[in-house]
Amino acid sequence: MFKEYWKEKRQLVEAAMEKIFPREIAQDKTLCDAMNYSLMAGGKRLRPVLLMAAADAVGGRGTDYLCTACAIEMIHTYSLIHDDLPAMDNDDYRRGKLTNHKVYGEGMAVLAGDALLTMAFEVMLRQPASSAEARLAVVQEMSQAAGPNGMVGGQAIDLESENKHIDMKRLKQMHMGKTGALFCAAIRSGAILAGTDEDQLTALTLYAEKFGMAFQITDDILDVTGSEEVIGKPVGSDERNHKSTYVTLTSLETAQQLARQAADDAVAALDGFDEKADFLRDIVRYLIDRDK
Amino acid sequence: MFKEYWKEKRQLVEAAMEKIFPREIAQDKTLCDAMNYSLMAGGKRLRPVLLMAAADAVGGRGTDYLCTACAIEMIHTYSLIHDDLPAMDNDDYRRGKLTNHKVYGEGMAVLAGDALLTMAFEVMLRQPASSAEARLAVVQEMSQAAGPNGMVGGQAIDLESENKHIDMKRLKQMHMGKTGALFCAAIRSGAILAGTDEDQLTALTLYAEKFGMAFQITDDILDVTGSEEVIGKPVGSDERNHKSTYVTLTSLETAQQLARQAADDAVAALDGFDEKADFLRDIVRYLIDRDK
Repeated sequence: MFKEYWKEKRQLVEAAMEKIFPREIAQDKTLCDAMNYSLMAGGKRLRPVLLMAAADAVGGRGTDYLCTACAIEMIHTYSLIHDDLPAMDNDDYRRGKLTNHKVYGEGMAVLAGDALLTMAFEVMLRQPASSAEARLAVVQEMSQAAGPNGMVGGQAIDLESENKHIDMKRLKQMHMGKTGALFCAAIRSGAILAGTDEDQLTALTLYAEKFGMAFQITDDILDVTGSEEVIGKPVGSDERNHKSTYVTLTSLETAQQLARQAADDAVAALDGFDEKADFLRDIVRYLIDRDK
Repeated sequence: MFKEYWKEKRQLVEAAMEKIFPREIAQDKTLCDAMNYSLMAGGKRLRPVLLMAAADAVGGRGTDYLCTACAIEMIHTYSLIHDDLPAMDNDDYRRGKLTNHKVYGEGMAVLAGDALLTMAFEVMLRQPASSAEARLAVVQEMSQAAGPNGMVGGQAIDLESENKHIDMKRLKQMHMGKTGALFCAAIRSGAILAGTDEDQLTALTLYAEKFGMAFQITDDILDVTGSEEVIGKPVGSDERNHKSTYVTLTSLETAQQLARQAADDAVAALDGFDEKADFLRDIVRYLIDRDK
């Protein structure tokens, strides 16, 4: 059930993204190719699926919100492209494929990221089955989550923390920004579009925060325990870059414990929901046991 | 009159931007500093002033729309930061000051640009004195104008055209994207916020296109005839980078003629407007005679 739900939603998102691209972008073919290259490079499509699952959880129909689901994947993809740049993480591979700048050059990679981010806001406005107020609320969720107090803020902390010791508080702040904020926006946006009430939104926000934490701690763990072949990118990069992580600041065992606790908290936040929230319950368990 | 109008609006925009920054961005101080550095580095504040002037021209009150005016300046500023990067134009100076990456490093400059772009969408939602529909229309104008079919598309063409001959058609397409689209969004957004009718919007859109063309041709001319001291950045960079410009594709004289023609067309587009459009008439004349 759980895996079929994910697969079905993922395929819907990918089909919708292919529909958005590339026909509408005729102005510069290389830019279009570069955007497409990273957007269609696979991946878990976690944020769009979470968005749809949150809409389902509050009694809506997640598949009604494919435009917004695609938009958040575009934002996520832009962040990966910029994050991989030589001036940032300097990664050559992502998901087993060459990173964007290795194929298209640094300048075009910067622009492809810029274009995906900008176009995301236009794509979320196309969302049918939603009121003007709901669409405005979604633009606000996304812009706040992806901006200087969210994702980009987290990346800035990350950039400044290389070769530096940071404490647990700063590490949490970094992750809340880098990954937590966009998970949060995905889940909140899906709920808002589907007409959530305030109590549900509060519970889902807590779920999202804990989910993000469990996800990120697991990411740190996988950088130590993972297999390069399975992850599709080099492992051990955190240590090579002298990055503080949940593993380096505590221990592998403590990190695993923290991940499990966050997952438990996430599931507990959904106590007031019925079986329509089962996907959200299952995925957090699944993700902390993942191998990539 | 004309210069006072500009100065007054510019000061209002700068005061509004200072109010937006930096108090609200506590997460990462360096990121905040980097955003501020470029945003408050002076400049003509042309796009926000055009936005307000368009609102005035259709009988609204431009100063009611400071939030959106700030937002478009944030988008413009982000584009300058990324455009100056070593992987793009590789400029060390902008407006007589070191470029963002020369001060904060390439990684932080990428993030500062990303943050300004993203936050711009959030800032335009704060716009009071506007309906949900008008705000949505503005988000759409901005995202389309700044995206792959607008500004970023134009930058991609620019990047690909270095050391390459391009024809006049491609050059126009590049400029329509690089600078024209955002001018257009500024003017259309101001008009939309102030409740324009369709005829006015069509006329202002034509004005904006011609304005953008006059502005860009003049930019190309200044790269040949300008003084480094006055412009605040090195002249002759187009030639050094083997870029096709209006001057290299025609001649200095023809380019000057084309700029004048575009300016005339811009003013003619405003035939149906009364004296409340005088600033728009005056500024296009002023800008083609500018020395920086």
